[in-house]
Amino acid sequence: MTFSDEAKLKKIQEHVKKIEYLKFTNNNLLYWDKITNMPKKGIEFRSEVMSFLAGEIHKLGEDKEFNDLVSYFEAKDSEKLDIRTNSMIRRIKKNYEYVNRIPADEYRDYIYLIASAEEIWSKCKKNNDFDTIVPYLERIINHFKNFAEYWGYEQEPYDALLSFYETGVNLKTVDTMFVQLRDFIVKLLERIQESKVHIAKDIFKGNFRKSKQSKMTMDILNRIGFDFEAGRVDEGIHPTILPNSNKDVRIITAYDEKDFRPAFTTSLHGGGQALYEQGIDSDLYGTFLAEPSSMVILEAVARFYENIFGKSKEFWDFYYPILQGYFPSFKDVPKESFYKGINNVESTFIRMDADELTYNLHIIIRYEIERDLMNNKLKVKDIPDVWNQKYKDYLGIEPPNYSLGVLQDVHRFSGYFGYFPSYILGNFYDDIVASGNWKEINEWFKEKIFVHGAIYNPQELIYIVTDENLKSEYFIDYLNKKYKYIYEI
Amino acid sequence: MTFSDEAKLKKIQEHVKKIEYLKFTNNNLLYWDKITNMPKKGIEFRSEVMSFLAGEIHKLGEDKEFNDLVSYFEAKDSEKLDIRTNSMIRRIKKNYEYVNRIPADEYRDYIYLIASAEEIWSKCKKNNDFDTIVPYLERIINHFKNFAEYWGYEQEPYDALLSFYETGVNLKTVDTMFVQLRDFIVKLLERIQESKVHIAKDIFKGNFRKSKQSKMTMDILNRIGFDFEAGRVDEGIHPTILPNSNKDVRIITAYDEKDFRPAFTTSLHGGGQALYEQGIDSDLYGTFLAEPSSMVILEAVARFYENIFGKSKEFWDFYYPILQGYFPSFKDVPKESFYKGINNVESTFIRMDADELTYNLHIIIRYEIERDLMNNKLKVKDIPDVWNQKYKDYLGIEPPNYSLGVLQDVHRFSGYFGYFPSYILGNFYDDIVASGNWKEINEWFKEKIFVHGAIYNPQELIYIVTDENLKSEYFIDYLNKKYKYIYEI
Repeated sequence: MTFSDEAKLKKIQEHVKKIEYLKFTNNNLLYWDKITNMPKKGIEFRSEVMSFLAGEIHKLGEDKEFNDLVSYFEAKDSEKLDIRTNSMIRRIKKNYEYVNRIPADEYRDYIYLIASAEEIWSKCKKNNDFDTIVPYLERIINHFKNFAEYWGYEQEPYDALLSFYETGVNLKTVDTMFVQLRDFIVKLLERIQESKVHIAKDIFKGNFRKSKQSKMTMDILNRIGFDFEAGRVDEGIHPTILPNSNKDVRIITAYDEKDFRPAFTTSLHGGGQALYEQGIDSDLYGTFLAEPSSMVILEAVARFYENIFGKSKEFWDFYYPILQGYFPSFKDVPKESFYKGINNVESTFIRMDADELTYNLHIIIRYEIERDLMNNKLKVKDIPDVWNQKYKDYLGIEPPNYSLGVLQDVHRFSGYFGYFPSYILGNFYDDIVASGNWKEINEWFKEKIFVHGAIYNPQELIYIVTDENLKSEYFIDYLNKKYKYIYEI
Repeated sequence: MTFSDEAKLKKIQEHVKKIEYLKFTNNNLLYWDKITNMPKKGIEFRSEVMSFLAGEIHKLGEDKEFNDLVSYFEAKDSEKLDIRTNSMIRRIKKNYEYVNRIPADEYRDYIYLIASAEEIWSKCKKNNDFDTIVPYLERIINHFKNFAEYWGYEQEPYDALLSFYETGVNLKTVDTMFVQLRDFIVKLLERIQESKVHIAKDIFKGNFRKSKQSKMTMDILNRIGFDFEAGRVDEGIHPTILPNSNKDVRIITAYDEKDFRPAFTTSLHGGGQALYEQGIDSDLYGTFLAEPSSMVILEAVARFYENIFGKSKEFWDFYYPILQGYFPSFKDVPKESFYKGINNVESTFIRMDADELTYNLHIIIRYEIERDLMNNKLKVKDIPDVWNQKYKDYLGIEPPNYSLGVLQDVHRFSGYFGYFPSYILGNFYDDIVASGNWKEINEWFKEKIFVHGAIYNPQELIYIVTDENLKSEYFIDYLNKKYKYIYEI
């Protein structure tokens, strides 16, 4: 690289740093404070501050000199640049071009629509009212159809959304894998439902003191390698993680004193995400690459820790005596009953309540509906009928109302259209993981994945780590073995 | 005001809002998080973020269009503007002109010097080493002498500093009041030391559980009218308050499990400051006037709650049974002994440990030394001798080393030169307060003082509220009566 190129690169990085400072502060720290500590009446001023900072972030992204410098490197032969620079330029383009390709007026309309639709959605859900949301949903989908045209796609409009959330994925690949997976799970579920094996479910009802659940959370996080000098855990309204840098990663958890499982799940799901964030190389700040490769990869790591790891026999062989120490009521429950109980499979209306197996069907249903909407094969007003039919066909249950059905998720009403496949793709990625002791798992992940931040895109990362492309067979195998054992089928 | 003037004013206010957003966020919220929640390793990135935001605040203050608009209103006949506009313009000028009048190079040097001197001071204090700090202190004082010339003053250089911290105060007024007060207290202290009255001091040693101290703190704050929906209390390294707006005021306290008094003091000192912040009119945001009239007035309110209120017989008539509920060891201590004990007078080397009476002498000593340094009547190298002589003359004790003497405060090494008189002036202001029940006191303060934010300068405020100018007689009277009773002199 020439001297002048280096100076140009330095300018880009200085500008990126400013955006990172504001983003971490506004999206993570101020938001974290809002959901954990902020007194009730603080909301008005906080909202003003957060919307001001969002505006500043937007302004920095639109800066002409910055964008000219980025275009300069984009026009260069990428062979002559190192991988970090190429990834950074690609990332910046992705962050801004997607928005910049949308005409400013339309983008403003969309943002405004999203903001009001979330409020409407919340009311409709409460009142079991789908009709009122129809025109909003139609407008949102029309926007996304337009976006797909602005962004471009290879074969079908939905491809544009898929590659926005997960660079390098297309509809054909996903369709093939999802059909395979769906058909397999539907059949497996039927056999599970016919199984005569007794699963103890009532063992999870009881009194689980908050202080004990908190101790369990800290213990698990400590064992999987969470660095408490570079992060913390707090209680908040809904579980999430918020990194203020790789050295300050905050997990939010919630305690249910009647059931320890939500806190347990968060300690592994959120814990896995937190390990990812802590493992990112510090040198990547100032490049937009100091973040996970994609939402899917992040979710994949989280679901690995939550399910493949945290619901395995091996996990409970080691951890059950410790859990019994925290919650003595389990002393009367044999380990095998506990293991089967925590892996109980049961069709539910609500995605958030689903088990490891049926969760995938919830995602596939959403995926199929979104795909058909985008590709003009489904009308908004027909969603409820299709939704209910699919729940009947795949899960064998029919939602009694909209709130327990089509209106349960805010996602499609808040700009996360096309996001759902992420959850399930994550499960495939999990198969890249070998077993080992708890901190070693983190070391392996760190070296192979975390440290690279977003240098590689998800597909590159999979290939580099596993020497294979993404496929569904490993995941199907895993599910098959697990549930055959549990349900003796 | 003309239509065009209104548009200009709106522009100023929009600009001021941006500065306020960044200031509250950086100086208060991010700092609050740093001292209460931030994990250890988060410090590096946090420092980068905070110094970036400080730079942005500085840039906004230097904005040419903004400054031109301010100058436009400053040049106008103030009779034609309302009081808010006049105060806002005065405040903006004060915020920026003081810095702007210093040549940029010198200001940078000064900031850099302060930053390194604080580190040096910390080491010197530890090593009981005054010599090393001398050249730093000389350079700081030379800067302040220059600043005084840039800022201008009526009679003596120290006046410039006094009016920076407290508009409308001059050396002559302060000198007169301080000499009166000093001579009075020195004499009173001699009589107290000769008193035969037995004061029980060991009653304050014991075990005071943190959880109980926390409950006491919440109880007191609730009783004085602190709004917990617009604020909160957390534990941190050193007590302070940090407002993120009048609707989100955060008190930091610290607990000593061997002595409940530090937490008790904070609940009233910090509580008083917090009531002030919560009482400020919301309409003042966007004018720089949504803050206390001055540090002195804020400190005055805090010291009113801490001493005149919280160390009064009337306070303990009501509160002693409640305190005994929290800490049963006091059940064996008669109320009168407790009241006298908590008002025990004793000369100490360290200002922070001083009682209500001798505290004033600590401040006066600092004031006299700073004044003489600024007015070229004292050299830096001679400070320790003068310091020790004054402690001997006024308090009757001589510090055995520098750490317990001249090196105890960071203030003069961190830009707070000229700040000390604030603490004591506060006591005079307290006399504007009538008695009443606890929440009524807040209502009175709120209506007369808090709600106005910084619309009036401190001297105006005193005059409006009391119909008198500031004088020392009331405070001397108060001290005289109080200690005559306690020490039977």
